[in-house]
Amino acid sequence: MNYPNKIKKEYHKITNYANRGMDLENLINETNNYYLEKDIAIIYKKPTPIGVVTVSYENNKQVITKAYFASPSTLDYNGIYKGKYIEFDAKSTESKTSFPLSNVHPHQIQHIKNIIRHKGIVFLIIQMNNLFYLLNGPDFLQFIANSSRKSIPYEYIKEYAYVLEYNYNKGIDYLKIIDLIGGFENEKN
Amino acid sequence: MNYPNKIKKEYHKITNYANRGMDLENLINETNNYYLEKDIAIIYKKPTPIGVVTVSYENNKQVITKAYFASPSTLDYNGIYKGKYIEFDAKSTESKTSFPLSNVHPHQIQHIKNIIRHKGIVFLIIQMNNLFYLLNGPDFLQFIANSSRKSIPYEYIKEYAYVLEYNYNKGIDYLKIIDLIGGFENEKN
Repeated sequence: MNYPNKIKKEYHKITNYANRGMDLENLINETNNYYLEKDIAIIYKKPTPIGVVTVSYENNKQVITKAYFASPSTLDYNGIYKGKYIEFDAKSTESKTSFPLSNVHPHQIQHIKNIIRHKGIVFLIIQMNNLFYLLNGPDFLQFIANSSRKSIPYEYIKEYAYVLEYNYNKGIDYLKIIDLIGGFENEKN
Repeated sequence: MNYPNKIKKEYHKITNYANRGMDLENLINETNNYYLEKDIAIIYKKPTPIGVVTVSYENNKQVITKAYFASPSTLDYNGIYKGKYIEFDAKSTESKTSFPLSNVHPHQIQHIKNIIRHKGIVFLIIQMNNLFYLLNGPDFLQFIANSSRKSIPYEYIKEYAYVLEYNYNKGIDYLKIIDLIGGFENEKN
């Protein structure tokens, strides 16, 4: 897939933005807030799953005094867009050559399959080489089904994923890509 | 709304079940597991939102040493059913006469309105008087819009909500009610 120069140009902005210290999670939260304010979609980050071990009281308020971070079996963000179910995860990698599949737990891969089978929209947003990519669920699964590699080569991402433009008001408007590629076409699968 | 005797009868079972110490959350998790296993729907409880204050390390593993429970602004359960977005919360009350609205935060009420506007299925499951009721989002909002009361009288719940049957294999099969009342009719609103 070749990107028109216009889209590539946008990315000077993103790079600058990233340099200013805005991380992927904040950028997506900003985007989701924009969608909420403009009543475009209702998408939230799920809380990080935590296993609480001990709780005590401090001024009549519960305080967790021991807990562990747990592994999620679903993806981090979900919600509703145009009446449909949407779910995705956001991952950054420092690697310039490939996206390590260790970033996605086996439970999450199974979950992605389940969501597609139930006609939901599901994808990954991958931050790599100072760009943000949207890799649609079916394209992610296609790679796994046809390769025994433990990472997705950057070439595959460049070919199958879509670059997300950064916009000062909208953040990274990933729903624009969903409209473009027809996330709703999952129904045909 | 009058319930046929058959449905009422089912409730002897539920009462016994409740007496055996199965709480509402476990019962819903069981039901969701049933849906997942039978590939009927994909519905999960969101993790409890927690504000982490301090973290330390123990055998190279992160341990949360101070954190607080936060108020959720969405409902506890969401997922996908027949391609559509579904979200709900589960609440128990000891009161025999009314369901206190303090159980639902103002942010959550706004969220319920948002979900309905975006054509999602949204409802509450209320455990009250040893029965489980499904109160559909629009009926919940109708009460709030037309009353300044701080609790929903049991009479209103008996009239507008649907009793959920308990089944040993399925738990409380709330999607049966969604099919029955046409949760998909929200699209007409």
